[in-house]
Amino acid sequence: MNVLVLGGDGYLGWPTALRLSARGHEVGIVDNLVRRQYDEEMGVDSLVPIRDLETRVRAWRQLSGLRVRTYIGDLADADFVERTLADAAPAAVVHFAEQRSAPYSMIDRAHAVYTQVNNVVGTLNLLYAIAEVDPDIHLVKLGTMGEYGTPNIDIEEGFIEITHRGRSDVLPFPKQPGSFYHLSKVHDSHNIAFSCRNWGLRSTDLNQGVVYGQETEETALHSDLATRYDYDAVFGTVLNRFIVQAVVGHPLTVYGKGGQTRGMLDIRDTLACIELALLNPPAAGEYRVFNQFTESFSVGDLAERVADLVPGAEIEHLDDPRVEQESHYYRAAHTKLLDLGLAPHLLSDGLMASLLALVDRHRDRVDPSAIRPTVDWRRTHSHLGATAGRP
Amino acid sequence: MNVLVLGGDGYLGWPTALRLSARGHEVGIVDNLVRRQYDEEMGVDSLVPIRDLETRVRAWRQLSGLRVRTYIGDLADADFVERTLADAAPAAVVHFAEQRSAPYSMIDRAHAVYTQVNNVVGTLNLLYAIAEVDPDIHLVKLGTMGEYGTPNIDIEEGFIEITHRGRSDVLPFPKQPGSFYHLSKVHDSHNIAFSCRNWGLRSTDLNQGVVYGQETEETALHSDLATRYDYDAVFGTVLNRFIVQAVVGHPLTVYGKGGQTRGMLDIRDTLACIELALLNPPAAGEYRVFNQFTESFSVGDLAERVADLVPGAEIEHLDDPRVEQESHYYRAAHTKLLDLGLAPHLLSDGLMASLLALVDRHRDRVDPSAIRPTVDWRRTHSHLGATAGRP
Repeated sequence: MNVLVLGGDGYLGWPTALRLSARGHEVGIVDNLVRRQYDEEMGVDSLVPIRDLETRVRAWRQLSGLRVRTYIGDLADADFVERTLADAAPAAVVHFAEQRSAPYSMIDRAHAVYTQVNNVVGTLNLLYAIAEVDPDIHLVKLGTMGEYGTPNIDIEEGFIEITHRGRSDVLPFPKQPGSFYHLSKVHDSHNIAFSCRNWGLRSTDLNQGVVYGQETEETALHSDLATRYDYDAVFGTVLNRFIVQAVVGHPLTVYGKGGQTRGMLDIRDTLACIELALLNPPAAGEYRVFNQFTESFSVGDLAERVADLVPGAEIEHLDDPRVEQESHYYRAAHTKLLDLGLAPHLLSDGLMASLLALVDRHRDRVDPSAIRPTVDWRRTHSHLGATAGRP
Repeated sequence: MNVLVLGGDGYLGWPTALRLSARGHEVGIVDNLVRRQYDEEMGVDSLVPIRDLETRVRAWRQLSGLRVRTYIGDLADADFVERTLADAAPAAVVHFAEQRSAPYSMIDRAHAVYTQVNNVVGTLNLLYAIAEVDPDIHLVKLGTMGEYGTPNIDIEEGFIEITHRGRSDVLPFPKQPGSFYHLSKVHDSHNIAFSCRNWGLRSTDLNQGVVYGQETEETALHSDLATRYDYDAVFGTVLNRFIVQAVVGHPLTVYGKGGQTRGMLDIRDTLACIELALLNPPAAGEYRVFNQFTESFSVGDLAERVADLVPGAEIEHLDDPRVEQESHYYRAAHTKLLDLGLAPHLLSDGLMASLLALVDRHRDRVDPSAIRPTVDWRRTHSHLGATAGRP
C-alpha cells in the first residue's frame, strides 16, 4: 500500500514509517521538522540521540535496501499539501503532524492559539486536499483518549447509543477535554466526522492512550534509526518520565493524589494498531473511532511499579499543576483493534527493566532542571524563562 | 450594567447595543467592520440602507441623549482585546463578533479556514483577556441551535443526563454540526466550557435559532438607526429571504423536500434574551447553555405561511445545496429563557405583513441575481465569479 506518514520525523511517526516500509508498503514522510524546534524553544533534548531526517532515511536505505521518500513542508501551506498528495498519490495518509503536548498548549495565550491553529488548520487543509485530489484516500488520524475526559460512565469508542424520553440514537460520545491541546483534537474530530458525512471521505480516528517505550523492531537495528525519548515535563509521557527520574535519583513526580487513570500502550502496539487500521479501511463516507490503548493505569500505580524495581526510588506528590480530577471512575472500551487482531504488549517488569537499562546508558544526557513541571494550568502565563519564545 | 457588545455593528449586535443603552446600561461597541466587507466581497448589500457606525452612534446620541462608546479593532489582535477590556472594565461582554454564515464558510477551503480561525481565535483571545483582566466578567456568547444537528432524540439545553451500563452522568449534549461555520461554534463551545472549568470564568452560551424580522423599538425611531436586512443566499436567513422573494415575484426557494425543521425567533426576542442572560448571570466557574428560540418551523411550512399571504406567490423545490436531512425528527427544549421571564413574540401574520410592507418600500434595491443559492456543500470550490476574493 502507498502510504504517507505526516509527522514522520516525530516520536511515533518515525518508527511508524519504518514499520510500514519494512512490511512492504511504499512510504513517504511529510514533516516540517518543527518538533526539533520545540526542543530548542524549551531548551531540552531527546534523551536518546537522534539523527536528522535525511541521515535517518539514508541509514534505513543502507540497512534495509528500502527507499522512504521525504516531503519537507507545513500542513498550514495548503498548496504544499495538495501538491504532495497529488505527487505521492497515496492510498492512505497517517496523520501524526500536530503539536501534541498538553503542557505546551497551556504555557500562555500564544501557545494555545498556535496549537489550535496549527492542528485544526493543518487538518482542514488535509481534508480539502483529500476531497480534491482523491476522496478515496483513507485518513488515519491520531486523536487522543484525552478527548473524552473522565466521565462517570463507561467510555465507548467514539459513539454511544443514547435512549432519552422514549427515543434512541447513536451519537458522538460527549467530549470533556482538559487542555487547549486536547481541545484541538476534539475540534479535529468534529471537522473530520463532518467531512466524511459531507464529502463521503473515509477516516479512522485513533483515540490513542499515553504511549511508553522507545525501541521498535526497526529502530533497534542501528543507533542512526533511533526515535526520540522525551523526559521533560512538557513533552515527556508519564512512564518514560518516571523511568528517567528513577535512574537519576529524582523523586518520581506524581501530580496530586495520583488517582488520575489513563489508557496506556507500548510504542510497539502503536505501530501494530496503525497497520491494522490501514489494512482494514472503513467504507467510503465512514468515520470510525478506535480507542487505541491496551491497559489502564493510575499515575500512582505506575509510580509504584517503577519504584518497586529501583532500590531507593522515592515518590513525591506535587501539587497538581493541571486542573483535573485526581481520583475518578475510569473504564473505557478498547475492543475494536483487538477484534482486528491486535496482540498487545502488556506492561511488564521486563519492559521496564529494558527501559531502565536504556536510560542508564544515556544518563549523562539528563538535564535535571527539565524534570519538574513548569506549566501551571491555573495561570494564563507560565513563565518558562527566556526559553519560551513563540510569538 | 457596563456591557461591551462585540460585533455591535452587525445585524443583531447593533439593535442589541441600542436596546441595552435604552435600558440604562453603559454600552460599548467593539467591531472590526468586516461584515460590511463581506457585502463587498459577495457583491450584495443590505435591503434596508444602513449608516456607518459613526453616524449610527451619533444619531442615537442625538435622539436619546445616550452615549455608546466604540472600539474599532479585531478580536484576532490579542493586544487590542486586552486593552479594550482593561479600558472599558465591563461587567459583561456580549459576543456576536463572528463570521456567522454557513454558506460563506462552505465557499471553498480559504473561507472554511478563515471562518474557523476568525471565530475560534477571536474567542480564545477573548477568553484569555477575560481571565487576565477580570475573571468575573460574564461572557454572553452567541452560539447556534445548528451545533446540535438533527438527532433522533429530544435536544436538551447544552447538557444531557446519560445512563449507561448502570451508571449516570450529566454530559455535554453530543454535537453534529452541518457546516464549517457551525463547526466553529462547536469548537468555541468546547473552548469556553473548558475555560470556565479551568479558570473559573462564567459564561452563558446562547444557542440561537434562525432569527427573522428587522425592526426593534429603538431602531424604529429613525432611519439612521436601521439594522441590516440580508436577503441573499449567503447571509440572508430563511424567512427574511422568503418575504423578499414573495415581494419581487421570485418563487420561494425551498431546498429539497422542505422538511428541515429549525428553531426560530423574532429579532425582538433576541434582544430580550440577551438582556435576561445579562441580568441573571451564572455563578463563577459556571458554563450554562440556553436554547434561544421560541418556535420550531419546517422550511416548507414557513414558505406556505408566506405564500398564503401573497397572492400569486409560488414555491419552488430546488435541489438542496446543503448536505442535510430533508425530513427528520425535531424537538428541542427551550424553557430556560422562558423561566427567566421571556415573553415571546410568536410568528404572526401581522409581523409577516409588516415585513412585506417594509420590503416593498425597498423593493427597488433587490438584486434578483443574489437570491438563488450559489454555494454547493458537495463541492470543494463554489465558483462565485470574480466576487469571491478571500485569500
